[in-house]
Amino acid sequence: MSKPGPSELETREALSAAAEWVATYLQNPERYPVLSRVRPGDVSATLPDLPPEQGERLEDILRDVDALIMPGITHWNHPGFFAYFGITGSAPGVIGELVASALNVNAMLWRTSPAATELEQRTLRWVAHMLGLPTGWFGEILDTASSSTFCALAAAREAAGLDIRNRGMAGRPDLPPLAVYTSCEAHSSVDKAAIALGFGRNFTRRIEVDDAFRMRPDRLAQAIEKDIADGVRPVVVVATTGTTSTTSVDPVPAIADLCERHGIWLHVDAAYGGSAALVPELCWVLEGCERADSLVTNPHKWMLTPIDCSLLYTRHPDALKRAFSLVADYLKTDDGDAVNLMDYGLSLGRRFRSLKLWFVIRAFGRAGIAQVIERHVSLAQELARQIDEAPGWERLAPTPLSTVCFRHVPGPGVDADAHNKEIVDRVNASGEVFVSSTVLRGSYAIRVAIGNVASERRHVQRAWELMREVAG
Amino acid sequence: MSKPGPSELETREALSAAAEWVATYLQNPERYPVLSRVRPGDVSATLPDLPPEQGERLEDILRDVDALIMPGITHWNHPGFFAYFGITGSAPGVIGELVASALNVNAMLWRTSPAATELEQRTLRWVAHMLGLPTGWFGEILDTASSSTFCALAAAREAAGLDIRNRGMAGRPDLPPLAVYTSCEAHSSVDKAAIALGFGRNFTRRIEVDDAFRMRPDRLAQAIEKDIADGVRPVVVVATTGTTSTTSVDPVPAIADLCERHGIWLHVDAAYGGSAALVPELCWVLEGCERADSLVTNPHKWMLTPIDCSLLYTRHPDALKRAFSLVADYLKTDDGDAVNLMDYGLSLGRRFRSLKLWFVIRAFGRAGIAQVIERHVSLAQELARQIDEAPGWERLAPTPLSTVCFRHVPGPGVDADAHNKEIVDRVNASGEVFVSSTVLRGSYAIRVAIGNVASERRHVQRAWELMREVAG
Repeated sequence: MSKPGPSELETREALSAAAEWVATYLQNPERYPVLSRVRPGDVSATLPDLPPEQGERLEDILRDVDALIMPGITHWNHPGFFAYFGITGSAPGVIGELVASALNVNAMLWRTSPAATELEQRTLRWVAHMLGLPTGWFGEILDTASSSTFCALAAAREAAGLDIRNRGMAGRPDLPPLAVYTSCEAHSSVDKAAIALGFGRNFTRRIEVDDAFRMRPDRLAQAIEKDIADGVRPVVVVATTGTTSTTSVDPVPAIADLCERHGIWLHVDAAYGGSAALVPELCWVLEGCERADSLVTNPHKWMLTPIDCSLLYTRHPDALKRAFSLVADYLKTDDGDAVNLMDYGLSLGRRFRSLKLWFVIRAFGRAGIAQVIERHVSLAQELARQIDEAPGWERLAPTPLSTVCFRHVPGPGVDADAHNKEIVDRVNASGEVFVSSTVLRGSYAIRVAIGNVASERRHVQRAWELMREVAG
Repeated sequence: MSKPGPSELETREALSAAAEWVATYLQNPERYPVLSRVRPGDVSATLPDLPPEQGERLEDILRDVDALIMPGITHWNHPGFFAYFGITGSAPGVIGELVASALNVNAMLWRTSPAATELEQRTLRWVAHMLGLPTGWFGEILDTASSSTFCALAAAREAAGLDIRNRGMAGRPDLPPLAVYTSCEAHSSVDKAAIALGFGRNFTRRIEVDDAFRMRPDRLAQAIEKDIADGVRPVVVVATTGTTSTTSVDPVPAIADLCERHGIWLHVDAAYGGSAALVPELCWVLEGCERADSLVTNPHKWMLTPIDCSLLYTRHPDALKRAFSLVADYLKTDDGDAVNLMDYGLSLGRRFRSLKLWFVIRAFGRAGIAQVIERHVSLAQELARQIDEAPGWERLAPTPLSTVCFRHVPGPGVDADAHNKEIVDRVNASGEVFVSSTVLRGSYAIRVAIGNVASERRHVQRAWELMREVAG
């Protein structure tokens, strides 16, 4: 019986062909419409209902990437991608992923992955240094900010000293309700974590924001004091530097004051905004964050690294470890003080994510990444000015970083929300750019988020041109 | 100012060089010692303390992969890797990862990734079909079995109808303690999930196993009945098909009977063992699993797929969605009934993991994967027979699949645990093979787990030869 799977020659040829394909793709993603034009079910209809019984040739599968998969791709790696957060799977990061997937190591224990464990810690230190965060903080790389925030909140819950690890939360008359505080502009991952960890949505306090969509410390103080008076225990505050809708930056110093006064864990969600601190002029985004108990920032958002790569830092690794560490007999080792990263999160299996981050940081250098971020911010500031100056258009939020929220004001009798939604849909149908939307103070807002390494002035200006054309 | 990062030409050359490097690596990982020989801190000592300010050339970074990273790699993709679970990052899967990382799509919403969303659902269906599971089950791809089990337990908690989503678990006099049941041989991820979800370790009932390390349904019944009598509410039972220490298979049909009788959610951890059902003679491993409420199986373990790739199935997608769904304004779409996969787990960001799985299934075919698994099982069975026949050696557990647990019985007055640990350490120092250990009924056991696509008879026999040599 022949050996299953591709031969060595076929493998070598297919790897080479795939590398060529990737180089060509990264060189010119603009061949494709940025937003896929398929309708739900279209891709499925091209895929066999049942798996093949016998193996197929790799060249045929690669051909089907073009034929079956590409039509259903919305191109996050396209310079006209301005939706959600513009992100980049840069070539150095892609090469890092390629090598990591071939090595296929599991960075659970030090001994199963010495290089992965130690490179993870070193790249975390590098990023902390670049962002002006304390380099002595413990860190780990997780998949997404949702996971990082979840782990941070789990550590905060454990640090509250209620022995939830062993005794659980249900059926305990000694336990008061436990509350989480975050702004009403914070990411839904805070609610998800609060639900999963048993705090409950009803005890996730969404604090009011100011005119610039920043959490109001006075309202936070009131909420905390009211809860304490009502017998609810405040456990954790989540501040955001770079909220998802408008990239507003919460006043972390004032929030840190409150947390210190009440002994509450402060977690900072800097998933998007954190990277901006690479640029000296933007380092204010992390002001006060050195006082946080934990902080998440995502190189897969604005630091040119392919998803997934989320960095969680904490000054309390012991709390994180108490929240998650369990060492089975089959995992016991005697490597002394070496860090076993499985002890600090939900997952035992851990990919070698630091390799791509190492490739990215080395290939671009701090200055190179900073230059990309600076350009994005500058392009967004130009667009913001243009909107401010254009009759019939209005910005709906400040633009502190590279995301612009605005709308067109239609003539009398026309529903503004429907009108702007129509603009977004028609612009996105062009295939040239893809913008998303949000809701700000009850109004539908067009949202342009600039973050892809290949996005240039012409792409942003084309988006603006298309919107004006469509708005009439 | 020049554009930061590598040029198009440099990118193309580096991608090509990396593809060559990977082809060569996959062709002959035996050039390297399987277990890294570095000591804690060795890799760190070679890495600069601070990140580079300016970008470096990709060829230099690739050279440093060889110089700095490879010495610290424990080679999970090596045919002599018999530790933990032998796994495979096969070439087709590596190619899938390469393409996915260049596309860099985020499969959170259908519209952000139509192909990723629909290919995910189709490959899940393919795997269900191959394993003989209900093809109508809802499924999703997560990173690890730890995450999948966590999500399953969160769904079970939500399905209990206690409105924990909104009301939380703390400070609720109406809530009884909530219990989770699993065998004392189950994976630590069950405890981790129980801790995170607020059940608590004290309410994670570790049920006794029989002589073959399988959960005893009679003891499970007793534990459930005692809890009910004591006012504790049973929420979920986790059965395992292929436990980590010995790959024992819990009697799922009898456990399903109990769960049905008491209205308890049944989750099956088939992370490792599930793949065996691809082989017709081994389909008994999933007997009764069609009655489960949820099930996890990991193609990154025994289905030739690079980590991470864990499949979670459930017959109750609504419960899973209630446990996790939160749709922010900036994520609202109008794509009708299309599935948005972000609604079914903790993470909003989701990699295009189905692409590598699609490559693997197509490149090997069901028959090819089955052939690899059959060979692993057959190699393990031969080793088990040899151990049984060898004077002074004894197996410490049955060998239902491809993992063999055993020890050498030393002469009188010699500590058996220390003696066998010494065998493991000396064999692993050879660099030819890497085996791990566990503890069975209090005794240290050598554990050989066969699961890499390149592992042949000669690798297993060499491990056995080395052990006999060392044992003296």
